[in-house]
This record gives sequence, C-alpha cells and structure tokens, in this order.
Amino acid sequence: MVIQDALITAAPKPGADQDSATPKNETNFERNDLLARYETVRQFSEALCETLVSEDYVIQTMPEMSPTKWHLAHTSWFFETFVLKPHLPGYKPLHPAYAFLFNSYYNAAGKMHARPQRGLISRPTVSETFAYRKHVDALVLQLLEAAGPKELERLAPLLTLGLNHEQQHQELMQTDIKHVFWMNPLRPVFREQNGVQHSDAGPVEWRHYPESVYYIGHHGKGFCFDNETPRHGVLLQKFSLASRLVTNREYLGFIEDDGYNRPEFWLSLGWNTVKERGWDAPLYWEKRHGEWWSMTLGGLREIVMDEPVCHVSYFEADAFARWANARLPQEAEWETASFSVPVEGHFAEAGRFHPMPLRRIGSSERLSQMFGDVWQWTQSSYSPYPGYRTAAGALGEYNGKFMCNQYVLRGASCATPRSHARRTYRNFFPPDARWQFTGIRLARNPE
Amino acid sequence: MVIQDALITAAPKPGADQDSATPKNETNFERNDLLARYETVRQFSEALCETLVSEDYVIQTMPEMSPTKWHLAHTSWFFETFVLKPHLPGYKPLHPAYAFLFNSYYNAAGKMHARPQRGLISRPTVSETFAYRKHVDALVLQLLEAAGPKELERLAPLLTLGLNHEQQHQELMQTDIKHVFWMNPLRPVFREQNGVQHSDAGPVEWRHYPESVYYIGHHGKGFCFDNETPRHGVLLQKFSLASRLVTNREYLGFIEDDGYNRPEFWLSLGWNTVKERGWDAPLYWEKRHGEWWSMTLGGLREIVMDEPVCHVSYFEADAFARWANARLPQEAEWETASFSVPVEGHFAEAGRFHPMPLRRIGSSERLSQMFGDVWQWTQSSYSPYPGYRTAAGALGEYNGKFMCNQYVLRGASCATPRSHARRTYRNFFPPDARWQFTGIRLARNPE
Amino acid sequence: MVIQDALITAAPKPGADQDSATPKNETNFERNDLLARYETVRQFSEALCETLVSEDYVIQTMPEMSPTKWHLAHTSWFFETFVLKPHLPGYKPLHPAYAFLFNSYYNAAGKMHARPQRGLISRPTVSETFAYRKHVDALVLQLLEAAGPKELERLAPLLTLGLNHEQQHQELMQTDIKHVFWMNPLRPVFREQNGVQHSDAGPVEWRHYPESVYYIGHHGKGFCFDNETPRHGVLLQKFSLASRLVTNREYLGFIEDDGYNRPEFWLSLGWNTVKERGWDAPLYWEKRHGEWWSMTLGGLREIVMDEPVCHVSYFEADAFARWANARLPQEAEWETASFSVPVEGHFAEAGRFHPMPLRRIGSSERLSQMFGDVWQWTQSSYSPYPGYRTAAGALGEYNGKFMCNQYVLRGASCATPRSHARRTYRNFFPPDARWQFTGIRLARNPE
Amino acid sequence: MVIQDALITAAPKPGADQDSATPKNETNFERNDLLARYETVRQFSEALCETLVSEDYVIQTMPEMSPTKWHLAHTSWFFETFVLKPHLPGYKPLHPAYAFLFNSYYNAAGKMHARPQRGLISRPTVSETFAYRKHVDALVLQLLEAAGPKELERLAPLLTLGLNHEQQHQELMQTDIKHVFWMNPLRPVFREQNGVQHSDAGPVEWRHYPESVYYIGHHGKGFCFDNETPRHGVLLQKFSLASRLVTNREYLGFIEDDGYNRPEFWLSLGWNTVKERGWDAPLYWEKRHGEWWSMTLGGLREIVMDEPVCHVSYFEADAFARWANARLPQEAEWETASFSVPVEGHFAEAGRFHPMPLRRIGSSERLSQMFGDVWQWTQSSYSPYPGYRTAAGALGEYNGKFMCNQYVLRGASCATPRSHARRTYRNFFPPDARWQFTGIRLARNPE
Repeated sequence: MVIQDALITAAPKPGADQDSATPKNETNFERNDLLARYETVRQFSEALCETLVSEDYVIQTMPEMSPTKWHLAHTSWFFETFVLKPHLPGYKPLHPAYAFLFNSYYNAAGKMHARPQRGLISRPTVSETFAYRKHVDALVLQLLEAAGPKELERLAPLLTLGLNHEQQHQELMQTDIKHVFWMNPLRPVFREQNGVQHSDAGPVEWRHYPESVYYIGHHGKGFCFDNETPRHGVLLQKFSLASRLVTNREYLGFIEDDGYNRPEFWLSLGWNTVKERGWDAPLYWEKRHGEWWSMTLGGLREIVMDEPVCHVSYFEADAFARWANARLPQEAEWETASFSVPVEGHFAEAGRFHPMPLRRIGSSERLSQMFGDVWQWTQSSYSPYPGYRTAAGALGEYNGKFMCNQYVLRGASCATPRSHARRTYRNFFPPDARWQFTGIRLARNPE
Repeated sequence: MVIQDALITAAPKPGADQDSATPKNETNFERNDLLARYETVRQFSEALCETLVSEDYVIQTMPEMSPTKWHLAHTSWFFETFVLKPHLPGYKPLHPAYAFLFNSYYNAAGKMHARPQRGLISRPTVSETFAYRKHVDALVLQLLEAAGPKELERLAPLLTLGLNHEQQHQELMQTDIKHVFWMNPLRPVFREQNGVQHSDAGPVEWRHYPESVYYIGHHGKGFCFDNETPRHGVLLQKFSLASRLVTNREYLGFIEDDGYNRPEFWLSLGWNTVKERGWDAPLYWEKRHGEWWSMTLGGLREIVMDEPVCHVSYFEADAFARWANARLPQEAEWETASFSVPVEGHFAEAGRFHPMPLRRIGSSERLSQMFGDVWQWTQSSYSPYPGYRTAAGALGEYNGKFMCNQYVLRGASCATPRSHARRTYRNFFPPDARWQFTGIRLARNPE
Repeated sequence: MVIQDALITAAPKPGADQDSATPKNETNFERNDLLARYETVRQFSEALCETLVSEDYVIQTMPEMSPTKWHLAHTSWFFETFVLKPHLPGYKPLHPAYAFLFNSYYNAAGKMHARPQRGLISRPTVSETFAYRKHVDALVLQLLEAAGPKELERLAPLLTLGLNHEQQHQELMQTDIKHVFWMNPLRPVFREQNGVQHSDAGPVEWRHYPESVYYIGHHGKGFCFDNETPRHGVLLQKFSLASRLVTNREYLGFIEDDGYNRPEFWLSLGWNTVKERGWDAPLYWEKRHGEWWSMTLGGLREIVMDEPVCHVSYFEADAFARWANARLPQEAEWETASFSVPVEGHFAEAGRFHPMPLRRIGSSERLSQMFGDVWQWTQSSYSPYPGYRTAAGALGEYNGKFMCNQYVLRGASCATPRSHARRTYRNFFPPDARWQFTGIRLARNPE
Repeated sequence: MVIQDALITAAPKPGADQDSATPKNETNFERNDLLARYETVRQFSEALCETLVSEDYVIQTMPEMSPTKWHLAHTSWFFETFVLKPHLPGYKPLHPAYAFLFNSYYNAAGKMHARPQRGLISRPTVSETFAYRKHVDALVLQLLEAAGPKELERLAPLLTLGLNHEQQHQELMQTDIKHVFWMNPLRPVFREQNGVQHSDAGPVEWRHYPESVYYIGHHGKGFCFDNETPRHGVLLQKFSLASRLVTNREYLGFIEDDGYNRPEFWLSLGWNTVKERGWDAPLYWEKRHGEWWSMTLGGLREIVMDEPVCHVSYFEADAFARWANARLPQEAEWETASFSVPVEGHFAEAGRFHPMPLRRIGSSERLSQMFGDVWQWTQSSYSPYPGYRTAAGALGEYNGKFMCNQYVLRGASCATPRSHARRTYRNFFPPDARWQFTGIRLARNPE
C-alpha cells in the first residue's frame, strides 16, 4: 500500500458474538492482551530506528515514500485522532499543527500537509517526535487501564486497527529508508549482516488445482481489514502454481535473453515505463565490473543467485511470466492454494531485512515461500469484493478509495511483522512501484 | 479503446467448422458478402467526412486523439500491412514512409511515428490520403476477386478483422473531431441537426438477477475480438440492474448536491484528477448565463434533461453511483443481463451523433438502452479472461497488451456502427478518459 | 523577435518636421507612395505561400512558431485593430472572434487565444483567411484614398508600422514553415532550387576601430522601431571585427574539436541546454552515412562548406567564439562598423531562402556580409537605450516589454525583405532560439 | 549569486607590485593577518548555526537553495581542492566521495552531485561535516604557518578567494534557512529579536548627476572578484538617483493600486511569472485578518512600514519603478554615485537578519542606505566588462560562465558580512529570484 493505512472489518466486534455482559475476568484478560500488544508493536517501530542518526529521519527521496520521522509521528497521530480525541474526555492535542502535518490522506479528518513536502520539514525534531509518541502512549495506556467492559469493547477494535496500521508503517519504514540510503553515494548501511546465506533453490515444480467454486475472504474472529470481506465464492478454472518463488538466477536469464528490449513480453504501459525510465534490471541492481550487485539494507553486495528476485514492478513480473511461458496467479488462486501451508516464513523479526534463498528440507510436495521474503504480484486488479462496504467516517477512507489502477500482492515479506501476515491479506501497489520487497510466483493453465 | 485496434479470434476460421473443400457456390457467396461489406465499411469512413474541409483533417488537440487524416490513412495501412503485403505477390508499398507514419502501435510491424506528433504532419495531404485509400481498395478488391477457395479462407478473417478495426476508427473519428471543434472558439458544427428530441425518461426501475454460475464470452461462428474469449463460467452473487441509463437530470442532481466537492464519493485517484483539472461537470458542458449548455456534433446547445448523461469518466461514473447509493455493474453482470434484450438501439447510422432521450413504449419489464446511445462504464478492470491467449505476430498486439489500468465499457454508442455492436464486446478506456460517448447504468446489491 | 511585432518611433510624425499645411501635391505623392507600398508588402506575404497546400497552413510544431494561416490573419488583424477600428467610422469587425484569435500579445487590446494553441484551430479556413485579408485590404485602401491631408498624417505612421510589422511576419513565415517541413519525415520542399552555389570564402581578416565615443540609434526621417531610439553616445574601447561571417567549414572545426562536449567553452546555461536537448550540431543538421546534411527550404541537402553557418543559438555562437579565441561583438560596435558599407546583401526577394557563400570580388578592405544571409548574434542583452520611452496604449507593448533575457541580433537575413533592413535595426531572441536564420560574426579586443 | 562562488582578480598578486624579495617582517605581518582573517571568517559560518538542530541542516526546499550542511562542507571543499590538494605535499582527501558531493559547479574539478538532490543526503552527518571543517582548518593553518615568503605569495590570493567565497555562502546560509523555516507550518525562529525598530523614512529626495564619462570597475590593491575588472570608462547620460530605498509603505501603494494585475507595468516575462505563480506581494508576505505579515528570521511578524521593501524579484522591482514613473538604475550609475558615501550600513554582524528602517540624522544631502539592508536591483544585465578575461582552470568557472539571463544587484544586505561589501561589487541573480534580501532604489532621467 503506497499511502494507505487500514480499516478494521465489522467482524471483530467483540459484542457481536459474546454476551454483552462480559465477565470481569475476560475483560481483564482482553485488556492485558491489548496492553501487551500495544507495547510490543509500538516498541518495534522504535527498535527499527536504532541505527539511525537524526539526519536520516528527515529525508524524502521520492513522493511515494515518507521520512522515518513522519512515519513515527503519523502512527501516533492515528491513535491521537481515532482513540484519544473521541474517547478521552477533555483531551487536547499536544500541538495544534500536528493534525495538519501528520494526517496522511483522511479528508474527513481535515486538511493535510502535501505528501511530496514531507521531507521539507525539519521541525518537530526527532526528539520532539519521540516525545509525541511518549505523550500518546501514556494517555492510551491510561485510557486502556481505566476502561470498563463496555468501553473496552469500543476501544479494542480501534486499538487493534491502530496497531495493524502501525505494522504496515513498520514495513514502509524499512523500504523507505532503503531508498534513502540508496540515493546517497556513500551507500550507508542500515543494519550490518554477517555474511550471506547460500542455498540451492532447486527446480520449480508445479502444484495443480482443479476447477471448482472456492471461497475466499476473511472469516472468523481474528482481525482483518475491510477489503478482505465479505467472504464469497468464486468459480476458478483448473490452474497450476509454482512450488517456489522466482530466483535471481532465473530473472537474470530473462535479462540476458534481452527481455528488457523485447516489446513482445510487455504490457503497453510497461513498455513505455521501461523505456522512459531506462530500466534494465530490478531496482537497486547495478553492474560493477561486469557483475550485478545490489543495494540492500545490509549495504551493497553481489547478487545471490538463489535468493528470490526482489524489487520488481508488476510490469516486470508480468513480462517475466510471459517470457517464461507462464502467467501471474489470480489472487483467488493464490489464496485458495495458501490453505495447504501454515503461515510461516521469513519475517521482519528475523532482522535480516532482505529475502533469503529457499532452504529445501527433503522432498516436499508443499508450496514453499508462500509467506515472508517477498510480496507476490498477482494479476488481479485491486477491486472490491462483491458486497464490500466501507465504514462511515474517516476510517472509511482506509481502503476503498484506493481501488483503482493498483494490483494485489499476496503473502508477506521479510519486512512484514510476523503477526501481520494472513492468508486473506490483500496488499496493493500501482503497477510501476518497485521499492517494496516485491517478487514473483508463477502460475499456469494446465493443458 | 484509446489507441487500440482489434484482433480476430480463433473462432471464425472458416476451415475449422466446414468442409475443407468449400463448394464453389459457397465460396462465391462468401466472396460477394465480403466484397459488399468491404465496400460498405470503407465507404462509411469517407461518408463521415462529408462536411469537413481540408484544414479539419490535420488537427490533433490532445495526445489521446488523432487527426481525421490519420484515421483514414491508418485504416488503409492496416489492410496494406496485413492483407496486401503478405498476400499480394510482388506488392510494393505506395510510399516507403507510410509504414512509419501510419503504424499505430504494432512494434512487431516496425518503428512508428510518435503518437503525440500526429498533428504536426501536413503531408501527405488530404487528397493524397484519399488516393492512398483508393490504391489500397483497388488492390484489395482485385485480390479478393481473384482468390480461390483456399486463399479466401486465409483472407476472410484478415479482411473481417480489418473491417472491424475500421469500424472502431469510425467511432474515434467522430469523438476526435468533436474534440477538435470544441477546442475552437468558433465552435464549428460537424452535422446540422433539426431540433432536439424531448421525451420523459420516467423513473428508474430495478431488474433482479439471482446468484448463479453464468457463462460469458463469445461463442458461435460470428466475428469477435480475441479479448472476448474464451467463453467461461463466473459465479455471480445476486444483483440488480437499473432499467435505463442515468439521465442529465439525475446527473445534475449530483452536481447541485456539490458532488464534485465532496471527497467521500470519489476514488482517491478520481479526487486528485477532479481537483487538478478543475472538473465540475461532464466534458463539453459549460455554464452560460446560469444554464448548462454542451458542445455536440450538431453545435453548442442547451442540455436536454432526459438524454443519457454523456462524456463522463469512470471516476465520475463511480462517484455518481456512490452518491446514488448504488454501484457500477460488473461486466459479467452486464453481459448476463443483456441476453434478455435484442441488440437494438440508437447507432451511428442514425446520423444524429448524440445520445437521445429514452422513448418509453408502454410499460415494459425489459431493460432499455442496453445498446447504442452511450457506452456504459463497468467496475471491471480490463483483464484477460481465464485461458486467454494472444495471437502470434503483430496482430497479437491488438488487445492483450492494453490490459492494465483500463476499465471495461459495455453496450455501444450513438457513434458505433450498428453491425459492430455485440453482447460480448469489451470496450476499454483509462479511468480519466471522457471524450468518448460514455455514460452510466447503475447496479445494486439487493438486500 | 519571437512573439514581438513592432512600434513606430516618434520620429516619423510628418507634422513634426513639416508645415502642418501639407500642400496637396505632396499629399498625393505620399498617398500614392503609401498605396504602392501597402500593395507590395501585402502581396509579398501571399506570394510566399504560393507552393503551400491548405494542410500546411494549419500546423504549429512548437510554441515559438505560428501556423502560416495565423500569420496571414494576425497581420490583417493588426490593420483592422489599429487602423480600421479607430479611423474608419462605423467599422464593424468581420468576425467578432477574430479579435480574440488573432491578437498576439497586446494585453491592452483585450483577451487573446493562448499562443501554444494556434495549431489547434482549423477554422477559419485558409480561404476564409484570405477573404479576411481581402476585406481588410479593401477597406484600408478605401480609407487611404479618401483621406484628407490631416487624416493622412495620422494614418501614415500607423500604416507604415503595420507594413513593417507585416515584413517581420514575412520572415517568420519562412522560418516557421521550415520547422514544419523539417518535422515531417517526408521532408517536403518549400521552393525548388536549381543547384547550390559554391565559392571560396577566403580567410577572415580583421578590421580595426579605435577607442572613441560613437553615436548609435536611429536619426533622420525614415521609419524605425521605438527600440532604436533615442540616438545616444557610447564610449567604446578599441575593437576588431571579422571581415566576414563564420562559415560551415569553420563551425565544423569546432564540432570536430569536440566543442559540444567541452564545458570550458560554454556559458553555464548554454551547457545545460546543450546537454538536456542533446545538441551536437546546428539545428537542421543531420548526419547521413558519415556526412553532414541539412534541411533547407529547398529540401534536404549536403552542407556547403563556404556558406555562413546558420541556425545556431546565442549559446553556440558564444561558445564558438570562445573556442576561436574571440568574442561576439557588442551591438554598438556592430552598428558603428556598419556605416562603412552600404545596406546591401542577399535578402528575401532573391528567392533562395538560404544563406549563400561569400563571393569575393577582388581584394576588398571592406566588411562583407553585414546585411542579408544571416542575422548576427551580439553579446548585448536586449535593453532600453538611455531615455527610451514606450508609446501609450496597446502599441506601447510592441517592443519594450520584451527587454529581458533576450539578446540582440544585427544585420538581416536571407529571409528579410530588402526594405526592412537597417543599420540601427535591433532584432532580438532568447539565447536558446535557433530556428531563425542566425549566424556568427566574430569580434576581438586588439592587443 | 545563485550557485556561483567567486574568482580572485589578477590584481592582488602581491609579487606584481612589490619587491619579489618580501622582507621577513612583512611576510609575518601578512601571515598573521591571513591567519586572523581565516579564523574569523571560518568561525562566523559556524556561529551562524548556533540555533540550529541537526534536522535543520539537511533540508533543501527548492533547487536554488542548499542545505546548511552542504554550505558548511562545500566551503571546506573549496579550501581542500584549491589550497590543500595542490599545495600540501602528499595530501589525501578526508573522504573520496566528498569531491563529488561538495563540488558545486566546477566542471574542470570533476563530476558532481546533482544540485537539486542536495537535500536527499543524510550522510555525512552534521557532526561529520563539522569534523570535515576541523580537518581542513587544521591543515590549512599548518600550511600557512609553515609557508615561506614565496609560498605565502602563492597561497595568499587563494586563501583570500576562499574566504570571500565563504562569505558569499554565509549570506546564502541565512537566506536559505529562511526559506526552510518558511516552508514549515510551524514557522520556526532562526534568531529571537527584541522588538522591531520603527522610524520615519521621510520623503524620497533626488540626487542629480551630470552627463560624463565615468570610470567603473575595481582598481587598487584590495581584493575583488574578476567580474569587477577591468576598470573602464562609460559614457553616462545625466541621471537622478533616489536618496533612499523604497519602503514597504511605498510598495504597498503599488499593491493597493492593483499593481500585480495591471500588465502595463510589467515585462512580458514578468507578467507570465506573476500569473503562473500567483504572486500578489513580495515573497514571505501573507495576509492575516486583513493585515500584511511577513516571515522573518526572527519569526512571523507584521509588516513595518518604514523598512525597505525586501524579497522582491527583478520583475517586481522593474514593475514598481514603472508604476512610480521611474526606472531602475544602471549599475554604472549606481557605482558612480556610490563614491559620495562611505561603505557603511547595516550588515550581517549586527545580528538582526532583517533590513531596518532608515534613521534620518539631520538633513543630509547624501545618499542613504547604499550599503547593507538590501541588495539593490539594477537594470543592467550581468555581462563582461570590456576586456574581461576569466582565469585558466577550474577557478575560471567562478563568474564568467554565469553571464547570461541574470541581472546585477549592487550594495550589500543585512546578511552580508561587513568586510565583504564593496562599491564595485557585482552581485547577480535571475530576474525571478526573490529569496535573497533584495530591494529597490529608483533612478530617473532628469527632464
């Protein structure tokens, strides 16, 4: 999601599937759980910054990304605006201008600072921004601790939404600072890494799925964004899905077969984009003395052939698939297939900040790398599920209004917090975006 | 279709469903039919120009549209390139530069003149362009008359494709010259009209359709473009469709309710577009002394309230639908519902060059205005049907490569030739395009 | 002058230096002279068009140039606005929209059509435009013939201004249509030429001028534009001027010495321009099979080495001069030196539409090629002479408001009508303009 | 000077007008003087930063300005490149990338980082930048202390140039950070001020100067930039100069007379600029509740009527002058008149960072406010003096290559260090620049 943030679905209203008189113990259990999650998530945002110096927090290197400082403030503004203002009696904002400066795109919440100007703002400083976080945290925790059962019922979904929102920004913080460091000829390192892992990804195998009506979309009590609902049936033709992600080695085959110069593989818009911007490899790749290197959050290093290819746009994923005599999966195909594997993989908590080569453990018939490492482009345009409804008010702007000219990505990446990954999760970006950890899984129509 | 032209499907290969030894009579019947259609279609392009002066043919007023002269030449280039060059032994192009000047976007057919520069070319002149048409026509007819049965089998689908391609450009010729005349403060008239028709469109009624698996896509022997195939099943939830198109009166209600200034109705991209371009009404509308007027191909005249609203973008159609507590139909819904009515309506041959108000004939339970008057935006992103394959070679560039960031329109318009309209027809434009005859039919999810 | 047109100086008010009671014979003499000049000048504009077809008149290939049709109409609008409207009682404009469409930049004369949109207007047609000229001509001549002595005194300077204005546009008509034909891959020919002239330009000699106070600017009764006044003294250091223009051969030496890639020769703005636009030779030059060719109004042909170099910008002229260990002349130096030679040279009436090589006639101590062939860039920024005043009203917008970020050119070109050339004439263009017939004469500071 | 930095003239070569055998005492005197000036100037750059936090140093709010961090580093790079590298045997740069990052525009000194990307670089950090300064300072001082007489002769002009260069950047540091703070809705304060000064500027009087040949340009032993040479004679017509600067009160008269909406006052380029950018007052002015306020380095405050108007472009200065029935002075007029007053005024060392109202002390016949407060636009295009020559090598790029499409400003401003002001000083900026402390002094042609 480029600028987008997240809306809680109608599903997890606790009162809907419980007794309205929540017993006290259960209330305390939920309260403690919320408190713990709040502290964990909020703390993780700050932990991500541990190697940054003040100057790093300020920079905006392209309109699509935001300064680290802005992410830290905006996620706090979210709690201030949707939790503190409506629920803490007599609450006064810490600073009258923050509502303007840190509103991302919620028209219903008032006017906002222009997105491309986020890097022109040296104040509030980094330490003032951390103070803003502390201020919000103290009051949220106070509110949460004092809440009675009914209030807790009202607060819980908002806090849950706020935390999921913050997790989205945690991923953006990583991809955005990567762009900042890449723009700097000094090539700073975000987090030192001890060597790279090598592994043989092995050949792709194809998993087959029969024609049928399948059901997709979220159900059950857990949290989801509104765009994952309502659950509904889709009729899928039979299809095949690749057992693993496309590797750098395979993608290099496309490059060396002159893929970036052969219009027959490309969508018309993609071809124009490639030629106008002079693309000839994924973002962050550069050739040095005849070898491909790439900028990572661990610094500049040589391409590792068995790593999943990363930082490709939809256009490149689609062109690669055509070159490989395959196609991108539909999101419904991906979601359907995903039920055969657990939601496991290489996530942000691993602290590597880069996708890793597949470790093959025996001969598995299962799909690999479905979660973590890189988001997987689907061929599905981001559109509402049948019967989809947005919430009323500002939070209704979370997802629905972005359903145009964007494509759905599934899975999760090495920058996604583990608890944020979900089978039904619908990430989305415009087809030319490639500064996220985005890669490719192929699909085919069986003969 | 902005720049796009058309690819014949695999379906109408005559040899596939007939004896390979076509009897002579049948051959002659097909030949005569082709000859007649060729002359009719080619002549209609020229008839559309009957009021134009030489200067009108040259102008390009925005990159998306093309000069009339270019349309006349490009459609001839299509026959020259795909019929004469491969099938007329020893054929030499009339002019070596035409292949460069009049190739629209077929990379496989060679280099091409930049699209936005089509209006910078005074030569070949209009009369040289008509001479080019005559040259191509004479040789195509000669080729056709001399063709034996097997050759006819090879030629027929190419000619059919060429004629359908030309019909697409006939529609563009009308919409493009409308833009040219609108840009001119003198407001020239394309075709004089005797008065306007008034009629009471009556209230909208809703037609209901149950949840089911429906089959969409082309089948049978008739011509279709490749993007209408393969035929396949889709599972649709129950839905309702409005009995008629949205009228100017209804759209004015949206304008007067401040619709263009209320972000809650708009997609995010749509809102940005509206604000950046200062839109406050459909294209070609202007306020004069407090009344809305609009530029038509019959000149500037007051808005007729019961006419279908026209020249709205996808963004405006979508926002209007949200304001009206409805939504745009999916293309599968539209196609499914279309089978209840014949392919009849107000097409280009009527010579009015503008949508007309609905004439209600008794109380009908049927859908009205499904074909003709205005193309109807659907909420469906233009994407390949499951199992879709493009043809090999240049003609494979006809449709597939445009399947990105465009939305499907269904029906046909007052600028579409009658024989070009089809239930399965998939027209497509980017969501900000509004110089076509594009309008709105609403859909709803029944309670 | 890019968009600029011309203002008569206070000088030629006949009443100022004559008896106010002009004798009748003198009146008739002046009237007849005016009639003859009016017809000659107006006719020459039309004669320039004799090879054009209607489509050629419409095209605008860059914002700086105008369609032929527009030039023909605008020069008529000038007479309509500044002669007919104020001086012909009861005059009504031929068409109410022409004042809007054909006003170039006179804010005081009302609103105007946007300059970059002049090529988007197919109507009025070419024949309507010629009819507009006829209409204006008939009434101007009628007014002129009926004018009494006092009225003639008022009309004469306006008509003289109008005719000089039209002569400026005659030059633009040639340079603008050249750009149109160059943009067309068919490379049309404006006027066929019988072969090219060759001649040996011989070595450059230097003419020397001592330090002194010199007087520049217009004086006497003849016509001039206001920017040539007032006449005034300037103190010049001693200087040397090259005896002839820089040739293609010499300029090629600069190219082959890698001049376009060596920043030390260039102004900073020039260097940026060269790199951004990819310049590596004068406008209209192109390399074919290792040889330099150039587009001329007689078609594409090989470079003639002894012709004056043409279609260079101020930036290129200045860089060439630095490479040649010289500099561009100041306009006062040029004007001072020009008094040693008659106002003779190769002008538009010669019908060659391209500069010609110098013909050396014996050993001359004189300056050659001071007038005609190509305009000569000076190092002088276009600024007001001390004491300069603009006229009141719309005609005051003729010159003064363009005195910023433009550079003065002196002499005249092969596209200038002979009677339009003058020693004190100040032509001016922005430093990146090069579609005019602009060349180089070098100057030096003597040791 | 936007991006420009400065070249020492040939004048101050000590060896040229002194005995080549400089006595030892004199050497030590010069050495000590240089040491003192070096420390003073370098220290003042750092003193300007005393209220800044790290985040402030990083921001670039428009391509024309640079981050504070960049100024601090670039001025050190200047000493490193032109003093240490060629004169300190075995010198190795502190960091290999700094030559690329901190070269402003010296093509001869190698490739450079793109100017508009200076704000995208968080590293080197602020403290690393200060360390870079310390590193350079230590070695420069060491070199200076060890230099023998001949070496001192070589070093002195380079060090003098470097210090003057740094003083130019001191002024830019103030104007650039002002722009940064203005872009921030929080409106930070650069330096607190105790109240504003009020004073009655009194009526303008006119000082008259006769027609004559005057001599302008630098002479004597003191430092100057190469663009101030050679000294030469100019013939000036008689002229009058206003006794003081234009005040805010007077400029407000222009605004209230609808000056920004009346094209008759404006240069054509100026009028386009005003309309495209929506200018209706000087930069930093804003209307709050009907009153004009302006952003200053002391924060946002109400306009003080008797202060000199500031932050106007050449276009505005020129239009104001025309409205006031006057004109801007020529630079030669200004320089000539300046000799009647001492080089005194309100400079950077005053620590007010904003122009101050004129304090009238008795009835003076002298010109006031010739130096300090605001730079004064002249009507003179920035061009070379007759006989001007640039130095060889990279330092030749200091001034000459910017002599195009810029206008000369004279005097100095409240942001100029006192020792940097000079009668012959030629500051220059493009005509649309207005983020410098730029104001207006009027001139007139006496009747």
